[in-house]
Order: sequence, then C-alpha cells, then structure tokens
Amino acid sequence: MGFAIELRDQNAEDWDAAVNHPFVDQLLDGSLSDEDLRDYLVQDYQFCDAFTALLGQAVASAPSLPSRLVFARVLGAFASDENTYFQDCFNELDVQEIDRTAPVLGSATRDFDNLMRSALATRSYPEVLAVLLVAEWLYGDWAARAGDPTEWPVHAKHAEWIRLHNNPEYNAWVTWLRDEFDAVEPADAAARERVAATFAEAVRLERTFFDAALAVHVS
Amino acid sequence: MGFAIELRDQNAEDWDAAVNHPFVDQLLDGSLSDEDLRDYLVQDYQFCDAFTALLGQAVASAPSLPSRLVFARVLGAFASDENTYFQDCFNELDVQEIDRTAPVLGSATRDFDNLMRSALATRSYPEVLAVLLVAEWLYGDWAARAGDPTEWPVHAKHAEWIRLHNNPEYNAWVTWLRDEFDAVEPADAAARERVAATFAEAVRLERTFFDAALAVHVS
Repeated sequence: MGFAIELRDQNAEDWDAAVNHPFVDQLLDGSLSDEDLRDYLVQDYQFCDAFTALLGQAVASAPSLPSRLVFARVLGAFASDENTYFQDCFNELDVQEIDRTAPVLGSATRDFDNLMRSALATRSYPEVLAVLLVAEWLYGDWAARAGDPTEWPVHAKHAEWIRLHNNPEYNAWVTWLRDEFDAVEPADAAARERVAATFAEAVRLERTFFDAALAVHVS
Repeated sequence: MGFAIELRDQNAEDWDAAVNHPFVDQLLDGSLSDEDLRDYLVQDYQFCDAFTALLGQAVASAPSLPSRLVFARVLGAFASDENTYFQDCFNELDVQEIDRTAPVLGSATRDFDNLMRSALATRSYPEVLAVLLVAEWLYGDWAARAGDPTEWPVHAKHAEWIRLHNNPEYNAWVTWLRDEFDAVEPADAAARERVAATFAEAVRLERTFFDAALAVHVS
C-alpha cells in the first residue's frame, strides 16, 4: 500500500463525508440552488491565488524536469479552462465585482487558504504535494460519482464543474500526483508525520468547506 | 526611464556584444554550422530545468493572481513548444541520448545554471524577474534583428529558433516582463544593488555563452 492510500484510509471518515456530501449530491442531480452554487463558487474562487502559487512552488520544488513539466502543463491549462468556468458562472449568476475579487471570507476558506500558504512557505515538495493531492484527488472522487456524461445535469454551471474534475486528462493527473507523492514519502519519521498532518488537515477542510457551502442560508 | 532600461544601459557593452554576436549573425543568415548549432543547443537545453523552476518560482513569488497567471500561461507554452523544438533538432542533428540528458557542461553553462538557482533560492520576485528578463529580453533583441519572416533562413533548425523569440506573443511577454520588473524596483538601496548585480551577471553570461558556442571547435 502506498503512502497516499495509507493517508486516505487514515482519514476515511472525513474523506467519505466530503465525497458523499449533500452538496455533491445536489450538484450531481442538478438540484443545487443558484444561491448555494454562487456562495460556493465565490468562496472557492478565492483559492485560485494560493492554489496557483502552490502549483508554481511545485514546479520550483520538484526534483526533476519531467515532474516540473507536468505541473507546467497543468498550470497552463488551469490558467485558461478553470478561470473561464468561474467567469462564465459569475456572469450567469450575477456575481458582483466585489464578490469576485474581495468577498467576505468564510472561516473554512480562510483556514484552507492558510494551509496552502503554510505548505507553500515550507518549499517542501512532499508538503506541497500533500495539499495538491488532497484537493485534486478528492475532487476526482466526488466527480467520479457522476458516472456517464449522459447522466450529468443539463446546466453547464453544474455539468462543467463535473467535467473539469472528471475527464481522462484530469484522471491521469490525479494518478500521476498520487504516484509522485508515494515516490517522495519522507524516510524521516518527523517529516513523514508533518506531511501526514498536512494531508489530514486538508481532508478535514475539504469536508468543512462543503459544510459551509450549504450552511450559509441555514443560519 | 524605468529600472529595466537603466540596467540594460549600464550593461550596454555586454548586451550589444551578445545581441550582435557572430553566433547570431551566422544563425540569422543561415550559415551556422550544424556542429556549432548542435553544441549550442546541447548546452542550452541544460538550462531547461533551472529555467522552468525559475518560472515556477515566479508563479509562487508573484504579488498577485493576474501576474501568477501570466507565468502560468508561459509555463504551459514552454512545456510544449520550446521542448518540441529541442527534440526535433536533437533528432535532426543526431544528438546522442547522453548529450541530451547529461552532457559535459561548459563553464558558461555551469555559471548560468548557478545564477538561476541562486535567484531561485532567494525567492525574491525582483531577483527571479531579473534573470528571466535578461534571458527573454536579450533573446527578443537578437531575434528582432531577423527582420521580416520572408528574410529568415530556410532551414527550420534556424528559422524556428528565431520564430520562438520573434512573434507577437513573445514580444508582448517581454514587454510585460519589463513593466513588471519596473513595478517592483526595490526601494531599499542594498536590495536594488543586489538585483542590479544579478541583472549584470546574467547579461555577462549571455555574452559568454555565445562566445563559448563558437569557441568549442577553435580550441
């Protein structure tokens, strides 16, 4: 069993709760309200800065050119496709400029942003990978629940968010990330423990972030 | 006058010697021998690792998402176009595997690689930009000498190396880099001096690198 699977299993409760979250259920069956989707996307978009920086740090910290080039290609795609989805949805959902650039951040958003910037500051490849891997793998897992594209919801605002995390390139990228993470498992026990703690915190925050997305209008 | 122009003018002798180097003359008129082109490309390819890492560090160190995304797009393009040119030329020029992956490095190559890794290690955005700016701007300047594409040499091994550094996207990227560099000119005198020294060393090494490319077969 690799390091990645070991850590996912250690965090199975939070992982499964996130992957099978009611927010995901509603996204997959197309019943998610525009209000909930808007709040979720407004908060999620605020990760773009730290997430892009983290991918850049992965390019800088990777141990070889082939690995650097994988992140370089992902960065290139991320800079176009994913940003386009956000802008299209923001327009469709009438998101005001202030909520695109500087919304009030929820606590889960702040915590996740801090986790990304902490990993960035370490410049440690395994630490950076831990955060990237959780974010990408967990999203791949919930998007895989969508099954065949013919069963996806009809609106692009739902279907495109699924497609971005459920397509052959994305799946190959997640598999590559997992293999890369396994390959740099720290031999040092303390370093390994730090990476495991980062992984666990990222999983916990993914779950909390989905909780927050549905909780906004309940409170 | 901006910081970039000021530093280029301070290093005009090395800058102009590199831009108007006999190596460039021969590349532009298509008289460059395969032997010299091969030696040059074999050495130049060894920068790909540090240069890619440096672009990644720029993504990580940039002060805003729009700036990060510029480097992200350049990284995406670099990971495909530029690498393709090298592989095509290596095949055409019968470059052996060992010379693609681990050639004997010339002293100019080692020095430039060290400069890039030193800038990378600082994580300082102006330091990282100084090296990137010299590399890209100086190459844009020599490639601009090629004039109209109808006057370019006929062989792809020459013309494609010109095209990669002389096209509207490339020129816009160099202009953006220069503006970005001007915008982060350090207010602190010591920091400004360090950036200026990095810029000067990069220009000196660009000239030395062209010298080395023609000197190999003379010695």
